[in-house]
Amino acid sequence: MRALTITTALEYRNHYPMPTPAPGEALVRVLQAGICATDLELMQGYMGFQGVLGHEFVGIVEDAPQAHLKGTRVVGEINAACRTCPVCLAGRPTHCPHRTTLGIDRRDGAFADFLCLPVDNLHPLPDEITNDQAVFTEPLAAACQILEQVPVSPTDRVLVMGDGKLGLLCAQVLHQAPCRVTVVGRHREKLQILADLGIQTCHPPDPVASEFDIVVEATGTPEGFALASASVRPRGTIVLKSTHRHPTSVDMTSLVINEITVVGSRCGPFPPALARLREQAVDVQSLIHTRFSIEQGTEALAHATTPGVLKVILDMST
Amino acid sequence: MRALTITTALEYRNHYPMPTPAPGEALVRVLQAGICATDLELMQGYMGFQGVLGHEFVGIVEDAPQAHLKGTRVVGEINAACRTCPVCLAGRPTHCPHRTTLGIDRRDGAFADFLCLPVDNLHPLPDEITNDQAVFTEPLAAACQILEQVPVSPTDRVLVMGDGKLGLLCAQVLHQAPCRVTVVGRHREKLQILADLGIQTCHPPDPVASEFDIVVEATGTPEGFALASASVRPRGTIVLKSTHRHPTSVDMTSLVINEITVVGSRCGPFPPALARLREQAVDVQSLIHTRFSIEQGTEALAHATTPGVLKVILDMST
Repeated sequence: MRALTITTALEYRNHYPMPTPAPGEALVRVLQAGICATDLELMQGYMGFQGVLGHEFVGIVEDAPQAHLKGTRVVGEINAACRTCPVCLAGRPTHCPHRTTLGIDRRDGAFADFLCLPVDNLHPLPDEITNDQAVFTEPLAAACQILEQVPVSPTDRVLVMGDGKLGLLCAQVLHQAPCRVTVVGRHREKLQILADLGIQTCHPPDPVASEFDIVVEATGTPEGFALASASVRPRGTIVLKSTHRHPTSVDMTSLVINEITVVGSRCGPFPPALARLREQAVDVQSLIHTRFSIEQGTEALAHATTPGVLKVILDMST
Repeated sequence: MRALTITTALEYRNHYPMPTPAPGEALVRVLQAGICATDLELMQGYMGFQGVLGHEFVGIVEDAPQAHLKGTRVVGEINAACRTCPVCLAGRPTHCPHRTTLGIDRRDGAFADFLCLPVDNLHPLPDEITNDQAVFTEPLAAACQILEQVPVSPTDRVLVMGDGKLGLLCAQVLHQAPCRVTVVGRHREKLQILADLGIQTCHPPDPVASEFDIVVEATGTPEGFALASASVRPRGTIVLKSTHRHPTSVDMTSLVINEITVVGSRCGPFPPALARLREQAVDVQSLIHTRFSIEQGTEALAHATTPGVLKVILDMST
């Protein structure tokens, strides 16, 4: 099958071996996949990953232990847990110490014609959700995770830092929570997408207000945390969404004196994300920048690194 | 009056000017005061404080706008808030941006014959609480603050890092919450105080277990955070109690991947601390290492810096 892999470097392969489903797993034919900032970090050595990249996808079940699933259009949660260890039994399967993660950690990913995932990870798609929208389920779920972790009230002033794909999704989810959202970013054309939705935006060197109840740090840079600390009110909450390869220097004493809560936030539940997509509650279409065939994959990933570029989609049907 | 001050260095002064109460403030004659690790940090330049040191005390109201308070034995909360700004009106007076803090920030402290505090900050002491016990109200309140900020259940495994005074108080408060407490520290004689109370202790190089639901970082060192991160389970909570002058290098990405919550925790409410002292629920007597007269104050503070020394008390009556 066709696949985009990293070993020492990113490589398009025309004859990569087909994956073989383990017990309880389905074989999924990938229709489309989205390129995420994490993919770009993985190309730089993050997690030491080797194999097929990609974890945002929509596909068709090609084979599964449950015959009725065959032919179903699905999206899939990316962490494959053992479901038997104490962590899984305590209700935290996304933190299973034995888990593999699609296209991120010891499991071949979605930038290929086929992938395997446990059947338990798959979510059938209603017809109202297009393939383009479905590709956003995983990052939108990560945005929805904020509401699972932090209580948000309509009067809360919330700052979203970063106008990348995740920042734009977080801003929309929070705007509808609802609460009083401001987004600070560097790209006027991306901020305009949010302004068109009635969300307040801010572009440096315009001063960012301070005294926010909640700050979502989604800049993807080590520098983001210092600005988040400066923008949050005493007893406020910083939600950390950025993953990167660099240590961050933190003034822990100011966190103590101001009694700041810092919440690390990663993957989220798919059902709230699917509900928002079905209800057209989140504009994801405006976030699609361009699409490439998988044969053009190395070009697609290079293009995704260009500043200002939003979602790049790999289309396996072409 | 007699006072221990810092300007460029710590100094005992025999004729320091008496403080003058502002409107709404009481004049308090100090009976005893406790030396805290923060005092030692202030001596090193933390907060840039100049004036009379000391914020843990028990005293007698010498003068107050309310005549019935005169002669009352009291302890006092250390943050003097404006009570009129939006932060105060939002119910967070300990974070008032206009606040002064007793012996820490622009307000002369308790290592003196007299101090001033707003009457609203004072708590009358029941007879059952001795002066020795009362001196521990402020640090015990800081320990109780953990329970105000973090839900703790009886099955939770909680690691307290640090066997300083604050660590020993946090361990006792958590042990009675109740939950399953382990304390890791460097001083066997301090850990023995906790072992005598039935609290599990651990002394390096003995390995510290991992997978704690909650880790309380009270080492007072920048290195503590890395061990806290290594000891907490995914989706667990790190409570930050240490204040020091050094930036800390943090792997923020591991906080995101493991969805760790970090809670900065500072001063706490006095009533829960006073309740515990009245009920003899916390052993503070074992934490008193020695006592000095205020004339011996520079010697007392030097002694308090000795590794292994617990609470040093300044007695103004001698």
